[in-house]
Amino acid sequence: MSAKHLNYLSSEQALADFAVLIKDLKKTLPGAQKSPVIAIGGSYGGMLAAWLRMKYPSSVAGALAASAPILQFIVPCGEFYRVVTHDFTISSANCSSSIRRSWPAIERFAATAEGLQWMSLTFGLCAPLKSPEDVFAFKAWLQETWVNLAMVDYPYEANFLQPLPAWPVKVACKHLQFTAGASDRELLYGISQAVRVYYNHTGAAACLNTSQTGTSSLGYLGWFYQSCTEMVMPMCTDGIQDMFEPEPWNFQAFSDECFNTFGVRPRQDWAETVYGGRDIRAHSNIIFSNGNLDPWISGGVTHSMSESVVAILVDGGAHHLDLRYNNEHDPESVIKTRTLEVRYFKEWIRQAARTLRSES
Amino acid sequence: MSAKHLNYLSSEQALADFAVLIKDLKKTLPGAQKSPVIAIGGSYGGMLAAWLRMKYPSSVAGALAASAPILQFIVPCGEFYRVVTHDFTISSANCSSSIRRSWPAIERFAATAEGLQWMSLTFGLCAPLKSPEDVFAFKAWLQETWVNLAMVDYPYEANFLQPLPAWPVKVACKHLQFTAGASDRELLYGISQAVRVYYNHTGAAACLNTSQTGTSSLGYLGWFYQSCTEMVMPMCTDGIQDMFEPEPWNFQAFSDECFNTFGVRPRQDWAETVYGGRDIRAHSNIIFSNGNLDPWISGGVTHSMSESVVAILVDGGAHHLDLRYNNEHDPESVIKTRTLEVRYFKEWIRQAARTLRSES
Repeated sequence: MSAKHLNYLSSEQALADFAVLIKDLKKTLPGAQKSPVIAIGGSYGGMLAAWLRMKYPSSVAGALAASAPILQFIVPCGEFYRVVTHDFTISSANCSSSIRRSWPAIERFAATAEGLQWMSLTFGLCAPLKSPEDVFAFKAWLQETWVNLAMVDYPYEANFLQPLPAWPVKVACKHLQFTAGASDRELLYGISQAVRVYYNHTGAAACLNTSQTGTSSLGYLGWFYQSCTEMVMPMCTDGIQDMFEPEPWNFQAFSDECFNTFGVRPRQDWAETVYGGRDIRAHSNIIFSNGNLDPWISGGVTHSMSESVVAILVDGGAHHLDLRYNNEHDPESVIKTRTLEVRYFKEWIRQAARTLRSES
Repeated sequence: MSAKHLNYLSSEQALADFAVLIKDLKKTLPGAQKSPVIAIGGSYGGMLAAWLRMKYPSSVAGALAASAPILQFIVPCGEFYRVVTHDFTISSANCSSSIRRSWPAIERFAATAEGLQWMSLTFGLCAPLKSPEDVFAFKAWLQETWVNLAMVDYPYEANFLQPLPAWPVKVACKHLQFTAGASDRELLYGISQAVRVYYNHTGAAACLNTSQTGTSSLGYLGWFYQSCTEMVMPMCTDGIQDMFEPEPWNFQAFSDECFNTFGVRPRQDWAETVYGGRDIRAHSNIIFSNGNLDPWISGGVTHSMSESVVAILVDGGAHHLDLRYNNEHDPESVIKTRTLEVRYFKEWIRQAARTLRSES
């Protein structure tokens, strides 16, 4: 990727591409000319779906924005990791507190060569830990693993970021039931087992690679570039309301990292300016659905803004559960959510048909 | 102007600039933080006002788009010149037909050196007509003069494009009362007198310059670039429903001219894609006002789209008359229009205040 081409990697460009594509499809697909289009997306795709309806309402009759954190730019930076932690806390006793205690335990083990070797072996790492940088990356990898487990905490076996068992957070937490008296060794062994729930559910992993978290197929580098330009989502941890090592949000450090990586610096306020922040009630025909297990609910629209900019809460739902296929283990909440969503779709299609009739 | 900098000359960039500016003003002007903003503009500025409300509704509570031809991209190409012609037709008997007959008369005079000399003297041209190219430019200059007269056909002395008397079309038409029996010489003398209404109302012009039409201060070259990129407004004449020489719309020729001038080619469909064409009823709080004497009404929104996307017709109004200062000669229609516009403004401000209250 060169800076020249990365210039086109912006949400505005994506929306314009969608608008042009939809117009072209309507022109070229037989029978499509007068078909109303509904934008549906999850996560960043959900943000794009909502924004497409906001910015190009003549292009789509409505949008379902599932687990779309369009407010992540402006909510308190600690909310995201607070939700992650909450998932582990409610999944079983002592789970989040075990993870909270694991960070100093890792540091204590990292202080000696034997400790590093023990951790490398116990976690089955592909590349043994050798330097403080390795340990730093190891902890970041663990942190992202907990985040991902929370995101994909689905009620049935699934394979979104990784092949996982049903309720993977609960399964991981089975290995993390430690009370304050547990030794560092017991604690970290439990962590290594919990991590394997995420990385080795199938038993096929020969070793664990701390440079991978299963999200590489989602184009992480591309998203990083976008977060370095307009999608600036402040994140922080304090170790109190969350189970992570305290790390304040440091925009300047983030900006420097962006500059060193891509030669660009982020426009911190642009996302709110261009997409309106919380002031979105002038728009219409948008559903924001959010699962209360999904960390991204922290930046989601969770209260209806008007009769046609509505929020749906999916109790017991992880990241855009409503967009997944029906499953016998679906909670009642997501079944109701899908029914409601389809009801809105039908209403939008009726509206669009009325508009078409009145125009012809 | 270089292509590098001209890249920033787009309506999207202008809207983004407005959004950033408004946000900054709200942040830095004491007391402005919670003040609702209303976008007001005429002509292209009116288009930007409407589009600002469409694309950044969190930035402005509403928009008054006066004489804003946002549909000019998609209406039949002959409409514009048909309205110009209509203005001359209703201003006095034989006026538009005199102008229609002037073009072949000019060609007949242009066939001889004496004819060219006579026209140059009679019109008091700064540079005498010598070549067919000069005659072509002379006719284009006349055509644009009639267009401009129609645009600024205000009911009182004014100085928008030029210092002009009240009802300048009627004044010009006093010199254009010819019936079919008039000689070419009589006809063209009348044309030369009518043109002077536009170029020499003050009596200060030593000679008439066919390379100027009084719109240079509006940044013609910049607008030409925009029409060569995204603001493609097809125009044509047929000499039947209008008083001009027939000239079909030729997109390819236009595109070639753009390429030769700026090295760019227009995106013919983009304006409709990005701004929605006629399908704008999902938006809210926009007034489209149009005067029925204004040629740009041909691309204006002249029917209300919803309760809050409304059209106001200004009977007897030229180009954005409603945005001008009150004048004792204002027609009743524009007085009512301004009152209605202010009533909408107040409603939008009340709405915005309610939104602010419910957010805090």
